[in-house]
Amino acid sequence: MAKVCFNVSLLLNTLKTVSLKNKRFNSSMAKKLIYTEYGDPLKVINLESAEIKEPEPNEVVVKLIAAPVNPADINTIQGKYPSKPPLPAVPGNEGVGKIVKLGANVIDLSEGDHVVPLSSNLGTWQTHLVLSANSVLKVPQKLGIVEAATLTVNPCTAFRMLRDFADLKPGDTVIQNGANSACGQNVIQICRAWGVRTVNVVRHRPDVGELKSYLKKLGATHVLTEEELRSTEIFQTKQVAKPKLALNCVGGKNALECLRHLQNGSSMVTYGGMSREPLTVPTSALIFKDLQFKGFWMTRWSKENYSSVDRFEMFDELISMMTNNELKGPTHEMIDFENFREALLNTLTIQGMIGKKYILKFN
Amino acid sequence: MAKVCFNVSLLLNTLKTVSLKNKRFNSSMAKKLIYTEYGDPLKVINLESAEIKEPEPNEVVVKLIAAPVNPADINTIQGKYPSKPPLPAVPGNEGVGKIVKLGANVIDLSEGDHVVPLSSNLGTWQTHLVLSANSVLKVPQKLGIVEAATLTVNPCTAFRMLRDFADLKPGDTVIQNGANSACGQNVIQICRAWGVRTVNVVRHRPDVGELKSYLKKLGATHVLTEEELRSTEIFQTKQVAKPKLALNCVGGKNALECLRHLQNGSSMVTYGGMSREPLTVPTSALIFKDLQFKGFWMTRWSKENYSSVDRFEMFDELISMMTNNELKGPTHEMIDFENFREALLNTLTIQGMIGKKYILKFN
Repeated sequence: MAKVCFNVSLLLNTLKTVSLKNKRFNSSMAKKLIYTEYGDPLKVINLESAEIKEPEPNEVVVKLIAAPVNPADINTIQGKYPSKPPLPAVPGNEGVGKIVKLGANVIDLSEGDHVVPLSSNLGTWQTHLVLSANSVLKVPQKLGIVEAATLTVNPCTAFRMLRDFADLKPGDTVIQNGANSACGQNVIQICRAWGVRTVNVVRHRPDVGELKSYLKKLGATHVLTEEELRSTEIFQTKQVAKPKLALNCVGGKNALECLRHLQNGSSMVTYGGMSREPLTVPTSALIFKDLQFKGFWMTRWSKENYSSVDRFEMFDELISMMTNNELKGPTHEMIDFENFREALLNTLTIQGMIGKKYILKFN
Repeated sequence: MAKVCFNVSLLLNTLKTVSLKNKRFNSSMAKKLIYTEYGDPLKVINLESAEIKEPEPNEVVVKLIAAPVNPADINTIQGKYPSKPPLPAVPGNEGVGKIVKLGANVIDLSEGDHVVPLSSNLGTWQTHLVLSANSVLKVPQKLGIVEAATLTVNPCTAFRMLRDFADLKPGDTVIQNGANSACGQNVIQICRAWGVRTVNVVRHRPDVGELKSYLKKLGATHVLTEEELRSTEIFQTKQVAKPKLALNCVGGKNALECLRHLQNGSSMVTYGGMSREPLTVPTSALIFKDLQFKGFWMTRWSKENYSSVDRFEMFDELISMMTNNELKGPTHEMIDFENFREALLNTLTIQGMIGKKYILKFN
């Protein structure tokens, strides 16, 4: 009897495994968002069921856990972004997932590993992705889901701008505008971890005191409104050294005010243009102050450095800061994947002082 | 008698030598221009007699042959230039002279050598200069006086901008505005010598056809007015490759038109701002086209590279181009040193299509 029971139990277990496997790859479970024309994200995106193909020997099947809605995703869907995926396309550039199946030749990854995609435009707004094993980065299980899902854009942008455009040492100063942006908050925290001081410029608003406190808690050395920057004496009174680097995501007059304070020979790096005004540079700043004006685009850097040592050292360093609580994920709200329209609408009509990130979560 | 005669002859020769020496260093012959306050060059500059001190062991006495009046000299006298010499000051940064006396320890120079000063603000608008032997560059006698007198500013500026901000190869293209400026003409000729093609932008004017012919004779590949640049198809039809480098001495809208044609990842170097309008840079040019905006100031470069190999290789290369007739001195007019006010007035009210250079000549 015991033996029969054992066999039944074995049979049941086997059936359960098969059933789980079938469930895992049951196409009726797989879903994806898709758009067939560029336009208003609320109109052109639809939820569809999806097929999950069997992985090739070098591929893995990733079941998505979470994927953020970034402004660049919105612009891509609108057709306003320089990198245009061929249509039809699944939106989404960032995300974190769990490996649920390995191709026969994949040896350095395991089922259950948490991974993030290493390329953009892979389409993370779907329940399952079948990817080449070398197009994912394994991240530690102890890394928070939000941090993992938003690792490859904002923290990396902040890291590279701070690392590649100035030789920053503890005690040096960085000035940035749009300091309350997702990237700006990463800049503040990475600088604090490196001992670099930050002068953070934000727009005046009714709750500016609250915003200043928030950014100071993150590690901001000084937070000034655009108006306060114009008359500040923190540089004259040597409360902080003159900045060796300026990060600009605003443009227009605000950028001009920031560059006035830069040390001779330093750079302003532009990674956004929220004012929709161009950067205006006085001739004397170029010739006599020897300031340099450059741009940074994470998508290009990642393509050009796809397998570089610099890239993987950056991931290590950022993940280490995150797991040490030196660098925290963005203020966010998780939204069920099926309610994607809510996430899109909220991102399109973003409000509040620090631009909450909406993150799609999958079952 | 013969012996007496001989002695008399010897005595006469000795007297002649002493007399020549006295003549050479007779202070009543030495003159300098001087200003004791910043202001209108026509008012604040005066001609004075000067003392010529005996050279120290490491010094040489240089008798000036020719010294140009550059716009930067005018701005310095007006007090509008970033490098302000302590007052009273002798104006003039460039020039060529002949060594007329050597200090006891000077071994690598000889009397009669032609030399140009290696530092700025030495005051070349005077008949004699006593300089440290290592602050002059010996130039070949076969180098024209005009080329030698104007060697260290415009040709060097053109050379460095072409050498240091892009990796130019034969067949590559450079775009520049203010192409008829003194520096612009050097750019055209150096590029021709290097096999680099130039797209030259000038302001429209009644005699623009004549100007175009003049610049084409110098070696310009294309000459376009600002208006023609806006609608040109030379880049679309691949008559020339898209430029790898833009040189800007105008600013404003003109610079914006030039940067539109640049290859992704290239630089615009600003060395002047004749329109008095700042440089206006669209955010997308920085982020997505990865254009870089830098400035160049010859004075700073020369200070930072005073004794560098690069500097002396540059002088060799430029002098070699000049003596091979690949690079010619500016269109100019020689004006007697005593008539300096005429040279100043002409430079202040500069006219004509290619900005003639006024050069002070000494007896």
